[in-house]
Amino acid sequence: MEQPSLVSCLESLIGRENVSAAPAVLEQHSRGESYDESVLPEAVVFPESSEQVLQVVRFAAENRLAVTPVGANSSLEGQTVPVRGGISLDLSRMSRIVEFRAQDLMITVQAGVTYPKINEHVRRSGLFFPVDPGAHASLGGMVGTNASGTGAVRYGVTRDYVLMLEVVLPSGEIVRVGNKARKSSSGYDLRSLFCGAEGTLGVVTEVTLRLVGLPESASAARVAFGDAGTATEYVVSLIQAGAPVARCELIDSRSVAAINAHLGSSFPEQMTVFLEFHGSPAGVAESVELAQHLAFDAGALDFQASADPGERERLWAARHSHFVATVAANPGLRNIVTDVAVPISALPDAVGHALAASEQVGLAAYLVGHVGDGNFHLALFYPGDDLAARNARDVAHSIVEHALSVGGTSTGEHGVGLRKLPYMEAEHGSALELMRGIKQLFDPQGIMNPGKKIPEVNRDPSLGAKRVESPSN
Amino acid sequence: MEQPSLVSCLESLIGRENVSAAPAVLEQHSRGESYDESVLPEAVVFPESSEQVLQVVRFAAENRLAVTPVGANSSLEGQTVPVRGGISLDLSRMSRIVEFRAQDLMITVQAGVTYPKINEHVRRSGLFFPVDPGAHASLGGMVGTNASGTGAVRYGVTRDYVLMLEVVLPSGEIVRVGNKARKSSSGYDLRSLFCGAEGTLGVVTEVTLRLVGLPESASAARVAFGDAGTATEYVVSLIQAGAPVARCELIDSRSVAAINAHLGSSFPEQMTVFLEFHGSPAGVAESVELAQHLAFDAGALDFQASADPGERERLWAARHSHFVATVAANPGLRNIVTDVAVPISALPDAVGHALAASEQVGLAAYLVGHVGDGNFHLALFYPGDDLAARNARDVAHSIVEHALSVGGTSTGEHGVGLRKLPYMEAEHGSALELMRGIKQLFDPQGIMNPGKKIPEVNRDPSLGAKRVESPSN
Repeated sequence: MEQPSLVSCLESLIGRENVSAAPAVLEQHSRGESYDESVLPEAVVFPESSEQVLQVVRFAAENRLAVTPVGANSSLEGQTVPVRGGISLDLSRMSRIVEFRAQDLMITVQAGVTYPKINEHVRRSGLFFPVDPGAHASLGGMVGTNASGTGAVRYGVTRDYVLMLEVVLPSGEIVRVGNKARKSSSGYDLRSLFCGAEGTLGVVTEVTLRLVGLPESASAARVAFGDAGTATEYVVSLIQAGAPVARCELIDSRSVAAINAHLGSSFPEQMTVFLEFHGSPAGVAESVELAQHLAFDAGALDFQASADPGERERLWAARHSHFVATVAANPGLRNIVTDVAVPISALPDAVGHALAASEQVGLAAYLVGHVGDGNFHLALFYPGDDLAARNARDVAHSIVEHALSVGGTSTGEHGVGLRKLPYMEAEHGSALELMRGIKQLFDPQGIMNPGKKIPEVNRDPSLGAKRVESPSN
Repeated sequence: MEQPSLVSCLESLIGRENVSAAPAVLEQHSRGESYDESVLPEAVVFPESSEQVLQVVRFAAENRLAVTPVGANSSLEGQTVPVRGGISLDLSRMSRIVEFRAQDLMITVQAGVTYPKINEHVRRSGLFFPVDPGAHASLGGMVGTNASGTGAVRYGVTRDYVLMLEVVLPSGEIVRVGNKARKSSSGYDLRSLFCGAEGTLGVVTEVTLRLVGLPESASAARVAFGDAGTATEYVVSLIQAGAPVARCELIDSRSVAAINAHLGSSFPEQMTVFLEFHGSPAGVAESVELAQHLAFDAGALDFQASADPGERERLWAARHSHFVATVAANPGLRNIVTDVAVPISALPDAVGHALAASEQVGLAAYLVGHVGDGNFHLALFYPGDDLAARNARDVAHSIVEHALSVGGTSTGEHGVGLRKLPYMEAEHGSALELMRGIKQLFDPQGIMNPGKKIPEVNRDPSLGAKRVESPSN
């Protein structure tokens, strides 16, 4: 199919204003964050309703065109790169709050709604949605990667909040999975199957979430350590002691420096554990006391707690700026962000291994992590030459291999995308065949976000790809 | 295949001591709890290892024999009735704790291990597994129905604790799904798919669970009300206020009387909400105060709190004896236990509707519920005559229809089994076709617990059934 005719077909389906093949728009949809490869789609659609998504998906199925769903385009593993060309399906115009039922602690939103928008909408009801992956992620994308963030150690991940999903299937129909009760043992758990499927089984168009009550009281703390080893040992002791932390983040001195430079802040540039506690005023005070006690037992250099809301907000805004701050500190460089998670007792070794591996090849590495979950990231920056790129990939590879060797996972929250495909065989063994079967069942033509999540055995050559030059970051 | 030859084949596979076709053993495995239908299996196997389960499943697949997994046989919806005869696979001898990793808050057990055994094993480490469906359920069965219990309002359901599963597939292989990290976005979520699959996709042989810290402090409370309406309105106000309840159970006066008669206890025979709070001493005290304040606002007749461990234990032992106590109070009668869950704001209406429906036909109904989740049960007792049986079924039907009409589910925690099959179409709509596809993918011959969970379209007539007379309960 020629490009002009594809665009005009799509225009006649969902209106001229919702279709684009302008070079800048194609270029924008050719890449994600933190992933080098870029491929131009043939057209980008901006549907405004589930019905329009359905029209596009039906059209794509009839014409065997790849469909790549895009939300805020903040995923880090290449999920939104349209490697087989076709249609990029941008859900950013599906940004309507469909229904907020405060009395049921429940909200339904279109897939393009971002999580900060939800929290803004519900705050006056004393409720919140506690999953905060950063980057103003959209709910469709968060469901796609089963995103989490700083609150996961207490509040869990996106999957834990999804009550219902509306999904447009590649078979050309709309299904609703789940229900409005807080628990159910009915049918197979298709909700969980779509959570983390990265758009490879269908397009999530509407999400119903449960919400939780805003904590009555909260305190944050900064705990400084001399090195990563003592800091991670502290985190392990906190988790093993059952301390009711709401957030538990590790951030290294180089990252703090980058954040200070980017935000103009003045956090002490040390290996730091950021903590937060939620609960009743007395409960929070007790937790802070326990955390402080354990901190000095573990050899902390400093422990600073604050219940001041402004100060807490600045602390977490700083934490959430980590990625942009490190990018800003390394102009012209490319980056890889690793994302393994390991059993909590294996955390100190895993972090130590990661830091040593990057040091060995002289890479600028920035450590940050949701360490209460055993999940940490190393942002590796490198120049565009082949040797540096290979070094960065080798370090990232070695971090994953280590995590898998201790029973962990190649991705704690960013998903598989393109980058983690090589690890699926080792991580899932014979279960991978079941996953391939599920992909085949839901999407026999392989049009939904092809080439991602599950390594393909027999790639259908009729789904084409237009490879473009990979521009520098 | 003739029965003697089936038994001898099985004996040669896994040893004489692990196979039985003794009439009493067949009879024991012909029925579950609270479900009238009973069908004899042709043989019962008691494997002691995953390897033996594999041998039995391979043999069954080769010979197209039905395999019905059985744990503690305490499921309530007919899950263990071998409706197509064949082999009942009793996992009770797989009762080994495989590995306890206190430092990772993690335990791996064989599927026949019961949850009280886990809690006994880990208690000295200050940890516990908070899912308590009662009836000394086995972990395999709990995974099968995605069981929950009194702690779900705070701690969630079985699925929320499953890190890894070992499953014997009907294709004759063993797969491991999941990993030992606390979160992951790798691959499709097969863990969640097996949770709640009721043995229809494979036999769960080993379960790795995450554990949580025992609360530092706990208090229980009994709140008495004049009727179900005010009691449920109170529960709604508690949940909407975000009160950090760990347990929130409603139990009617008739149920309290049955428990008193059964246990010799002397709880006031009133419509009662049982509460529990977990946390720090100060946090718990604050929660009790909030709950008491809201209780009198809602018109409570009485509020009695206690932090005494012995008293708390008696309270929850009483709550957990509900089913046996009501059975004991109704000798010779049959029973149906309903299990709907609804959005929390719909709870008062749903409970009111259920009580009115049973009153209308003069049935002895006992109300109990995990009302903090919007999940409640009505245990309906009736004599064996046709009219009474029809009345009981009509009431149960009407309760499900009402729940579905408000966006709820036909089963909050007991699963589908045989009894909820008629509601799957209405509850899941076109998603049911995807579920059928998944069943077909995992179990193309349909040997795994056939006839349960998902209504079959084309039943394979070559999988036989031997129907026996339904003895009275």
